[in-house]
Amino acid sequence: MAGDGSDQRALQYEQTLMYGRYTQELGVYAKEEAARLRESGQRRSVSDRSRTLDLLEYDKGRCAKCRICTVRCQKFLISRVGEDWIFLILLGLLMALVSWVVDFCIAICLQAQKWMYGGLDSNVFLQYLAWVTYPVVLITFSAGFTQILAPQAVGSGIPEMKTILRGVVLKEYLTFKTFVAKVIGLTCALGSGMPLGKEGPFVHIASLCAALLSKFMSLFGGIYENESRNIEMLAAACAVGVGCCFAAPIGGVLFSIEVTSTFFAVRNYWRGFFAATFSAFIFRVLAVWNRDEETITALFKTRFRLDFPFDLQELPAFAVIGIASGFGGALFVYLNRLIVQFIRKQKAINRFLMKKRLLYPALVTLLISTLTFPPGFGQFMAGKLTQKESLVTLLDNRTWAKQGIAEDFDYIGHSQAWKHPQLNVFVTLVLFIVMKFWMSALATTIPVPCGAFMPVFVIGAAFGRLVGESMAAWFPDGINTDGTIYPIVPGGYAVVGAAALSGAVTHTVSTAVIVFELTGQISHILPVMIAVILANAVAQSLQPSLYDSIIRIKKLPYLPELGWGHHEKYNIRVEDIMVRDVRYITLNCCYRDLHNVLLTGHLKTLALVESAESMILLGSIERAQLQSLLSQQLGRPRRLEYIRERAAAEKKHLSVVSNPGSEDGSQRASQEVRFQISTEESSFSPTRPVPQKPLKPALKRPSVVERPTEIPTGPNDNSGIALKNLFCASPDTEGLEKNNNLETPASPEHRRPSKRVRISVVDDGDVEDDMTIREIAEWEEKQLDEQVNFNNCKIDPAPFQLVERTSLHKTHTIFSLLGLDHAYVTSIGRLIGVVSLKELRKAIEGSVTVKGVKVRPPLASFRDSGTSSSENEATELHKLWDRHKSMSLPREHTPSESDEKSQ
Amino acid sequence: MAGDGSDQRALQYEQTLMYGRYTQELGVYAKEEAARLRESGQRRSVSDRSRTLDLLEYDKGRCAKCRICTVRCQKFLISRVGEDWIFLILLGLLMALVSWVVDFCIAICLQAQKWMYGGLDSNVFLQYLAWVTYPVVLITFSAGFTQILAPQAVGSGIPEMKTILRGVVLKEYLTFKTFVAKVIGLTCALGSGMPLGKEGPFVHIASLCAALLSKFMSLFGGIYENESRNIEMLAAACAVGVGCCFAAPIGGVLFSIEVTSTFFAVRNYWRGFFAATFSAFIFRVLAVWNRDEETITALFKTRFRLDFPFDLQELPAFAVIGIASGFGGALFVYLNRLIVQFIRKQKAINRFLMKKRLLYPALVTLLISTLTFPPGFGQFMAGKLTQKESLVTLLDNRTWAKQGIAEDFDYIGHSQAWKHPQLNVFVTLVLFIVMKFWMSALATTIPVPCGAFMPVFVIGAAFGRLVGESMAAWFPDGINTDGTIYPIVPGGYAVVGAAALSGAVTHTVSTAVIVFELTGQISHILPVMIAVILANAVAQSLQPSLYDSIIRIKKLPYLPELGWGHHEKYNIRVEDIMVRDVRYITLNCCYRDLHNVLLTGHLKTLALVESAESMILLGSIERAQLQSLLSQQLGRPRRLEYIRERAAAEKKHLSVVSNPGSEDGSQRASQEVRFQISTEESSFSPTRPVPQKPLKPALKRPSVVERPTEIPTGPNDNSGIALKNLFCASPDTEGLEKNNNLETPASPEHRRPSKRVRISVVDDGDVEDDMTIREIAEWEEKQLDEQVNFNNCKIDPAPFQLVERTSLHKTHTIFSLLGLDHAYVTSIGRLIGVVSLKELRKAIEGSVTVKGVKVRPPLASFRDSGTSSSENEATELHKLWDRHKSMSLPREHTPSESDEKSQ
Repeated sequence: MAGDGSDQRALQYEQTLMYGRYTQELGVYAKEEAARLRESGQRRSVSDRSRTLDLLEYDKGRCAKCRICTVRCQKFLISRVGEDWIFLILLGLLMALVSWVVDFCIAICLQAQKWMYGGLDSNVFLQYLAWVTYPVVLITFSAGFTQILAPQAVGSGIPEMKTILRGVVLKEYLTFKTFVAKVIGLTCALGSGMPLGKEGPFVHIASLCAALLSKFMSLFGGIYENESRNIEMLAAACAVGVGCCFAAPIGGVLFSIEVTSTFFAVRNYWRGFFAATFSAFIFRVLAVWNRDEETITALFKTRFRLDFPFDLQELPAFAVIGIASGFGGALFVYLNRLIVQFIRKQKAINRFLMKKRLLYPALVTLLISTLTFPPGFGQFMAGKLTQKESLVTLLDNRTWAKQGIAEDFDYIGHSQAWKHPQLNVFVTLVLFIVMKFWMSALATTIPVPCGAFMPVFVIGAAFGRLVGESMAAWFPDGINTDGTIYPIVPGGYAVVGAAALSGAVTHTVSTAVIVFELTGQISHILPVMIAVILANAVAQSLQPSLYDSIIRIKKLPYLPELGWGHHEKYNIRVEDIMVRDVRYITLNCCYRDLHNVLLTGHLKTLALVESAESMILLGSIERAQLQSLLSQQLGRPRRLEYIRERAAAEKKHLSVVSNPGSEDGSQRASQEVRFQISTEESSFSPTRPVPQKPLKPALKRPSVVERPTEIPTGPNDNSGIALKNLFCASPDTEGLEKNNNLETPASPEHRRPSKRVRISVVDDGDVEDDMTIREIAEWEEKQLDEQVNFNNCKIDPAPFQLVERTSLHKTHTIFSLLGLDHAYVTSIGRLIGVVSLKELRKAIEGSVTVKGVKVRPPLASFRDSGTSSSENEATELHKLWDRHKSMSLPREHTPSESDEKSQ
Repeated sequence: MAGDGSDQRALQYEQTLMYGRYTQELGVYAKEEAARLRESGQRRSVSDRSRTLDLLEYDKGRCAKCRICTVRCQKFLISRVGEDWIFLILLGLLMALVSWVVDFCIAICLQAQKWMYGGLDSNVFLQYLAWVTYPVVLITFSAGFTQILAPQAVGSGIPEMKTILRGVVLKEYLTFKTFVAKVIGLTCALGSGMPLGKEGPFVHIASLCAALLSKFMSLFGGIYENESRNIEMLAAACAVGVGCCFAAPIGGVLFSIEVTSTFFAVRNYWRGFFAATFSAFIFRVLAVWNRDEETITALFKTRFRLDFPFDLQELPAFAVIGIASGFGGALFVYLNRLIVQFIRKQKAINRFLMKKRLLYPALVTLLISTLTFPPGFGQFMAGKLTQKESLVTLLDNRTWAKQGIAEDFDYIGHSQAWKHPQLNVFVTLVLFIVMKFWMSALATTIPVPCGAFMPVFVIGAAFGRLVGESMAAWFPDGINTDGTIYPIVPGGYAVVGAAALSGAVTHTVSTAVIVFELTGQISHILPVMIAVILANAVAQSLQPSLYDSIIRIKKLPYLPELGWGHHEKYNIRVEDIMVRDVRYITLNCCYRDLHNVLLTGHLKTLALVESAESMILLGSIERAQLQSLLSQQLGRPRRLEYIRERAAAEKKHLSVVSNPGSEDGSQRASQEVRFQISTEESSFSPTRPVPQKPLKPALKRPSVVERPTEIPTGPNDNSGIALKNLFCASPDTEGLEKNNNLETPASPEHRRPSKRVRISVVDDGDVEDDMTIREIAEWEEKQLDEQVNFNNCKIDPAPFQLVERTSLHKTHTIFSLLGLDHAYVTSIGRLIGVVSLKELRKAIEGSVTVKGVKVRPPLASFRDSGTSSSENEATELHKLWDRHKSMSLPREHTPSESDEKSQ
């Protein structure tokens, strides 16, 4: 994780480890929670009993039993609150309401625009103004509102949910503020009529709902604070999001699994289905109650004939749609990324747009709405229709082309938008596809809450309709020659196209299920499946999915998928990709080693080994833990304690000893006087003359002190320079450290002063703190030589381990299964390397995309030697065994060794 | 794994570990494979080049280029054979053909029965004979055929595939023999007209196909022998199996995921979809080519009206179907298990049936076919109809009841079977449901290849139809009151019932998708989803799924699912369930320790720790490895070598030494003379008088010999008694061992002789082997005291580790994710316990089913102490640290300690 630092640091994500720290925290939490529950349970049961007794005495009539019953029911209900299904029902209900209200508001917004446009039909200019101003205002408001309230609400949400479900905590991503910003922002954005979708944001909204509901429900029971449960609920919420957006429970579950998970627990399956079904049910029931529909039916119901949906000989045409959609989908992803990167790269534009944050959305909206202005260019591309209307007309089960060329076809309702007096319907469709294609790619880069699924779906439907109309024009009486005439149904082609293109853009197969649920007909299952699979095959070999593309653009931590049939993956081994110089600390290291290790590396966790010779991995410790250990050791409170102790000791031994260290001390004082001169701080507490005493009494483990002063990290100021180096390591100090490490550890002291003194700024001149800088330095030196006490340190006792011969394929599986961030490579307990997400990413992309960092060729590991690995292991074992024998011998560990490796 | 030993030993399954041995083997394999490939590649390219050159010279005309091109194409194609999609297409094609051929044969069989039955309508008795004999013969043949050819082919196959996909290797389960037995057995079984299904066997057949195809394809490229790839392909094959059975690609994929996986890799998704779609496509295209269908449509096409599929107020009825189906499904599973257990328990019946293996199938078939005989009881339950015909009539979109009571309804085609002159349609339906219910439960216990999905599906459809007809009779004009009359469609209820009951029996939600694909209509999506989810909720809380039930009956290794919302699972920790006295061997142990450990435990793998004090886990070793180590050390070749060496040494030192050990030796000989007397072997080579020499020169590490004779496993015969004890441990020897362990290890020698001598039967009296029993015993004693040399031992260097505080929920996840068999519990590298599948199973079932072994109550681990675990860890660390200091001190490990614990 050390590599792409700056962006990731900004995210401040934490890896939720499968074991260790995380588990421990949970354990501690669970204990507290259990204690609390038991207490409250006792209290409650006592109070309940007294209440029921009260009731009994208060009213001995026939009503008493009823009341007791009610109380019991209430208790029962509260105890049931912890059940999953109640949570899921509530989530489904909430999301159905949100979805319906959002849809309702969007419909009103769109109607308002139509009304304005329609009312001003006397003056084209006014009409244009109204047509253009309305979306610009809405989009600008949406962008501004989300920008101010919660910038996290911008965009789709699926990439972020994918990251969160991988175990990464994205800060501020699941808060109430974000919820409000997302819902209102989305409503305005979609109400503007731009080619934007609602499914991505709905995944995010559902997750927000789940997180907030979880928080709310935790008032009743502790179970809602369990991390793994929350992840399960978030996975269900994603399904609900898609499910209630399209009223497609099955497709929603599958789609959400495909876009957010790499490994899916089948035991969570029912959660998604349950919640999504309930949500879709309520969503559709609301429509029935609102008298929009007579009963529960599909959202975009089609009425294709059932008895002969398509001819077998039409299948090549469906396959062509699939392949073309694959290319189209890849192009869309590429175009979208290109626009984002272009905007980012053009610094001049960028600076301007960043200053006026709302200018970019406004400009894009202006451009798009100008082009769709119905009396203008919009007349050639059915600009009058909203997204929903376009889709309904495209899925129409009548054929346009046959009569479209002749003028006599009765375009009912919205279908007439596709008719143009001068152009035939093919040109209109082509124009629609081309214009909508780049418009959608552009519109989805606007910083408002928006998805790209629906626009792509509509484009796909248009493309399918185009092919279908062509086929219908080519075979006016259908292809089948056996008696009955079955004309071609272009609407079926539209369904196929919609599924294929949206599948290609999102790299999912479940769009097939979504179209069946959306249209309420499954008759075209085979053409749809064939087209979707072909589209996926083409798109996946060309580009990442739209969501993965956004993940890369946003620099979220990710693990690329292993592609189709890249079977060389089975032959790369961990030993080919692992980093061999691992940062580690030993169990018996001193604080100085800790300090050095922390200074020179940036890894979030460090390996704890038994000793530098044995290298037996004992666990891993987080960087923060080590930093706090170090700050405890060198911190002011401890020094003050030392001063107090020293003062006490002084009193005792005042008359006993002459001062043997004074001469040496004054020598060193004169040597270090330039440090005091070069210091910038004027507020520094004056160095009071303190009698220089031997430091021994203050040291708790005097036997450990062997090398008192000749160590690289020299004297520190009185609030711990060593610590500051760690916490605010600037590039130049790093450079210094590197220089130091190149030399022998005994002599770099003269290089240090400027830095040391420069950093020692923060000091408030405590009255008790009467040590001179030199004394403090000496004290710190001695502190650093003490052995580290890991007592109060949280250690992950079982970090994930791999062996050298684990294949890349298996490593990938394990990393994505367990959501790992890094894993240590061991050989019979010995730590020999580490693999992090970064290396894995490199290895996979290096051989998938040729541009990336190339790893060793697939068969590299076979060239090394023909001997089996058991021999190596035997050697390792012998080493271990030899070590055992020589354990009593003096150790010859040179601490600089590991430092040198890291250069 | 030690517990339910006998059955599992019979299965001879091996755990394919995620790491270590398995990986190593793969590594070794891959190396060899790569070497082979490189060689053959070079050879091939050389020969290709020479061939092309030959061609060029042979024919310089215009044809040469063509030929070169062809050769290149051929090369290209061969290189492409490794691609996944080729494999999947071949698999899909093959399975579609198999499915179609099987269906075709079944149809012919059924037609033949009908024809016989129809032709004999003059005589009821002959009719009855024909009706009954035909299925009895077919089923008996099927049972006999599978019994003889491959008993593994019996039954559904889904439980076994679930076990295999969990990583367990079932022997002989994926062979060609099994394939033949399954296909032919299934065809005969289904052709008999019994209420049996084809989907379970088809999952197995598809897996067989995949395995065989994989073997076949591996002739072209090495990639097909990769284990993880094979698992991926098997998962895809399961999807193909269901997909081509029902022509339901999406439902097939989902169903196969739900019934076979606990965690599913989304990256395998496309494989399943691709292969299943292709397979379903070919399957349906074959039907079109065979002129069965005009074009590709659903298998059981329905024609419900689209505009108003159902009224909102009908939903309660659908919910009732769901709940009732839930109970019905649980009852079916229970009934099925009850029958199997009854048959097993009744020893008299059982012995009789076992002797005449074919009697049980014949009797059951006779009973069932007698009851369905159309002129007999069959007339009341539409006994004339085959399964397929029943389903078609049940899904009919006309209402029977309205006219069913009146006589004037025109029952077209097969529907007339439901009409009975005396009874109304409700009674027929009820009889059909009740009779078919127990018949199906009984029929699926017949030892032929058969599934239960389709019978259950039909029963569900009948139940749904019953509810639907009742509703139609109750509301003859539909429920809706707003003007238009929409009569109730009982066929819709049948669809809902079918999905709900099959979902309840299999514990899957994807039956919903299967019914949509089977019927070609998705209009009833919400009712179906609601009913399926309710049915699942009810059934899952009452019984395991049918497949899990079979897994338990067959005693396959399994891991139960965590149930719905059992959130106490989050509170049980590994420390509550782990076994604390772990069998381990230390790095510096002697062969005697190895021997003891092997004698007293039955675990398949043993932990290797650094030393008994440190307990740092270094890896795990398989039992077989240790056994081979021991047999190497004590084996005959080594002893012969020793004799040779001794002879050589003897020659040298012949005149130098007097024999100091002779007195002691003769003493012991007299003491042990009774062993020689009590021995049963007459062929034992006579103990030749051999000069008794000091054994020292033969010992390679004389310094290790400290306790020469006072060890439990005393003198062994000349082919290694100690080994035999291990390999063929009978119950009584185990008892002996236990007794020995109760005593101090120094004195049990007098208990041993009978056993020792009884076992020492196998000896062929080698001429060179001139050692007396006593000498051999002495020699073995000394060999046992040598230190173990782990050089040639395969060690799993990274066995899976958990920490004490890992929750049961997480442990379950990890076990099912990685297909683990056991995991060690460590605390900062120290081994403190082990958790195996058995403990986990106990823990989960103990609290899920109340009957099972109850584990500590959920909150048990909170009662222990309120202190956080970090303190414990600190203590551990200090221990480690103290150990470091005291490493040079003498060790005080008592080897009996661990033995006592295991009692």
